[in-house]
Amino acid sequence: MTNTGLGERQIIRILTRRFATSQPSLPLGFDDDVAVFPFSRNRWIVLKTDMLFGHTDVPPGMSLEQAARKAVVATVSDFAAKGVQPLGLLISLGLTPPVGPRIVNEIANGLNRAAREYDCRILGGDTGESDDLVIDCIGFGLAEPKRMLRRSGARPGDVIAVTGTFGKTAAGLRILLAKNKASAMRFSKLVESVTHPMARLETGLKLARSGAVHSSIDSSDGLAWSLHEIARLSRVDILLENIPVAPEAEVFARRESLGAEDLALYGGEEYELVVAIRRDAFSDLKKRIPSLIRIGRVEAGRGEVRVLSRGRMRSIEPRGWEHMVSMSPYSRNHLLSSRAH
Amino acid sequence: MTNTGLGERQIIRILTRRFATSQPSLPLGFDDDVAVFPFSRNRWIVLKTDMLFGHTDVPPGMSLEQAARKAVVATVSDFAAKGVQPLGLLISLGLTPPVGPRIVNEIANGLNRAAREYDCRILGGDTGESDDLVIDCIGFGLAEPKRMLRRSGARPGDVIAVTGTFGKTAAGLRILLAKNKASAMRFSKLVESVTHPMARLETGLKLARSGAVHSSIDSSDGLAWSLHEIARLSRVDILLENIPVAPEAEVFARRESLGAEDLALYGGEEYELVVAIRRDAFSDLKKRIPSLIRIGRVEAGRGEVRVLSRGRMRSIEPRGWEHMVSMSPYSRNHLLSSRAH
Repeated sequence: MTNTGLGERQIIRILTRRFATSQPSLPLGFDDDVAVFPFSRNRWIVLKTDMLFGHTDVPPGMSLEQAARKAVVATVSDFAAKGVQPLGLLISLGLTPPVGPRIVNEIANGLNRAAREYDCRILGGDTGESDDLVIDCIGFGLAEPKRMLRRSGARPGDVIAVTGTFGKTAAGLRILLAKNKASAMRFSKLVESVTHPMARLETGLKLARSGAVHSSIDSSDGLAWSLHEIARLSRVDILLENIPVAPEAEVFARRESLGAEDLALYGGEEYELVVAIRRDAFSDLKKRIPSLIRIGRVEAGRGEVRVLSRGRMRSIEPRGWEHMVSMSPYSRNHLLSSRAH
Repeated sequence: MTNTGLGERQIIRILTRRFATSQPSLPLGFDDDVAVFPFSRNRWIVLKTDMLFGHTDVPPGMSLEQAARKAVVATVSDFAAKGVQPLGLLISLGLTPPVGPRIVNEIANGLNRAAREYDCRILGGDTGESDDLVIDCIGFGLAEPKRMLRRSGARPGDVIAVTGTFGKTAAGLRILLAKNKASAMRFSKLVESVTHPMARLETGLKLARSGAVHSSIDSSDGLAWSLHEIARLSRVDILLENIPVAPEAEVFARRESLGAEDLALYGGEEYELVVAIRRDAFSDLKKRIPSLIRIGRVEAGRGEVRVLSRGRMRSIEPRGWEHMVSMSPYSRNHLLSSRAH
């Protein structure tokens, strides 16, 4: 066995290359937010699986109910980015014995709440015995191929826009990891962005219906990474005019002597959408979706992302949140021990 | 937190009750082998998730490639029991760092092999960092509601039949756990039933097309459990005329002073189908599917399963293979340590 550990993206690259060469090609690449199966000429089955692990995805201070809800939000967010309504969910659970009824009920609360929020039904699932909390949330939906938003497709001249500000979850995560209660009270919005994330489903559906969106991705791997994915898969450059830092993250960053723009660019588990919109359609769309923020534009190029900041141009690295690389695991038992409070 | 640990079935009971009361009812109960979403009057989307955990589902002596293949077989087996062709698969992986390319390639080998065997495509997936190997295999397919086989539906007079003999995996598992190489060589068929299980997909599709099957379930939780599920959900009794013990399991049981019938009834992870067939159709169907073995009949009743053995009637308990209850976990590291051989 080699000692060189692969990162999540390298693992995915090996797997998808192996899958792709062993079967006929699919209408949507393995690189996109969801998987599709062509059901008929004008109907695709859309599928997505997103697996949450207690020790890497659930920071201290987050309840089991919140973790279960988050597992659904992560999957729904990928549907939002494609402009597709998720219709049904399957839930696979790995639980550590002994499992009491309260644990099961808290998980059911979180799953039911999220299913109601995003108007989808829980159809079934599986459970098993695991060392750590595992929640795999699988979503399915139906899409018209013409309407579905893809990561590729951005064109020079397009406006790059996002559905909200960034940096909140990176800051909130730091507060939770520091277990500083005063900070958590003062910056409750930042903490809430981690414990109660929102998928932009309604916005994603509107964006898809507009017919003006050329490219779309969710930002769960971080804003910088998402921009690079659009640039790489669309074979264009992206020029950022401003970095949409959340005001609360700005205040927190100043207090903690952190780079606010870094929090916004290289955080992750932030479920905003990042989209490329036809230039002439942007201002109309902005009227219908006020949360849209213009952050830059698409230029001809070969996949670079740059920002014009204080009169100088600098490159934005393709870094982002990544399992196996980005963070050391949280303690495994906080979900159970914190439950007594 | 309570100290009374729930078993897998109690956990599922709580969850499904919670899901069922919070949303409109589904055309197929949570109790069945797969989940369905009504797509149109004559088309259902069929979905299934089955999660494999290294330390409870992968015994020592089983390779990573075999484990990956088995994860697919477990999901395909549920489609087989419903008579539905799985079309696409999603794979969610939890891996323990450091992960080398060889590990990823072995998993890809197993997944690709199984996808080819059962003629379905791998559409996508997810990966994450986990303490233990986790492979969640999600299958999707399409079914005609009228054709789909359910667990409920067995009627008095029906023949109870299975697609093969039982007891091999319970015996093979004992051999693997004992790490006895001589035994493993002598009883290679038993070991192979664990390391290279087969889903009865072709048989399941034929059974569904016949129109003569009233009820069907796979036997992954054990023969006794499967019979009880048919009896409970169909509200009938089942009278067994013989217990279909595999000859190799019989020999092994004699040598080890074990009850061969117990191995056959209360084993598990055995992927045969257990079906109730219209009495007048059985002999015709047997000609087309020679592997079918008649083991008993359905009688009016309230969900009991009995066997007539040596002139005496005895009850068969609703026991079966169950996570959290049935077995102590295997060592967590054998998948990596055994990889050197």
